[in-house]
Amino acid sequence: MISKTPKPPYYAVIFTSVSSAITKGYDETSNQMISLAKKQIGFLGIESARNEVGITVSYWDSLENIKNWKDVFEHKIAQKRGKEVWYNTYKVRICRVEHDYGFEKQIEFKMD
Amino acid sequence: MISKTPKPPYYAVIFTSVSSAITKGYDETSNQMISLAKKQIGFLGIESARNEVGITVSYWDSLENIKNWKDVFEHKIAQKRGKEVWYNTYKVRICRVEHDYGFEKQIEFKMD
Repeated sequence: MISKTPKPPYYAVIFTSVSSAITKGYDETSNQMISLAKKQIGFLGIESARNEVGITVSYWDSLENIKNWKDVFEHKIAQKRGKEVWYNTYKVRICRVEHDYGFEKQIEFKMD
Repeated sequence: MISKTPKPPYYAVIFTSVSSAITKGYDETSNQMISLAKKQIGFLGIESARNEVGITVSYWDSLENIKNWKDVFEHKIAQKRGKEVWYNTYKVRICRVEHDYGFEKQIEFKMD
């Protein structure tokens, strides 16, 4: 769910999109791309949610490995198909994560 | 929907969360916080989606204005309530957006 990323600095790719009305083949390709991303060198994690807008954030160890992932053959085909069919608009933001912090609810156990 | 952010560099706060079972008061506070964020100096935009995981990305002109927003009184109360009630876990990542690009589908107009 929430990616267990290392201590910063590391990198994030924020992919924000608005889908077209055509969804045929989208889920299959999306799942394939997530599986493929997870196999890439430097991949650290991925988080995704979609309502009116879809947001997928993937985490990487370096700008170089983000570039390598962008250039993977199957990913390039998916990108092309995304423009032609699945997306009306999207934006990709390449970021350096400078600082992070988190919260986890403590669950109290009671031993009788 | 997709924030119209300026030319990089600028900053992004990626807030990824898993909700608790308690939703009372969440939507109201969430909407209030979005309205309040939009009034802050240095605010550039916000994007949000939620399924199993919620992702909200807000964009800012500087680390200083991110810090100022974190410290706004009403926001601090909402953060406290978030930990106590609405979230099981969350992660906040403060990022410098180094580079961005986008796509917008061209709609063809035909004049007869």
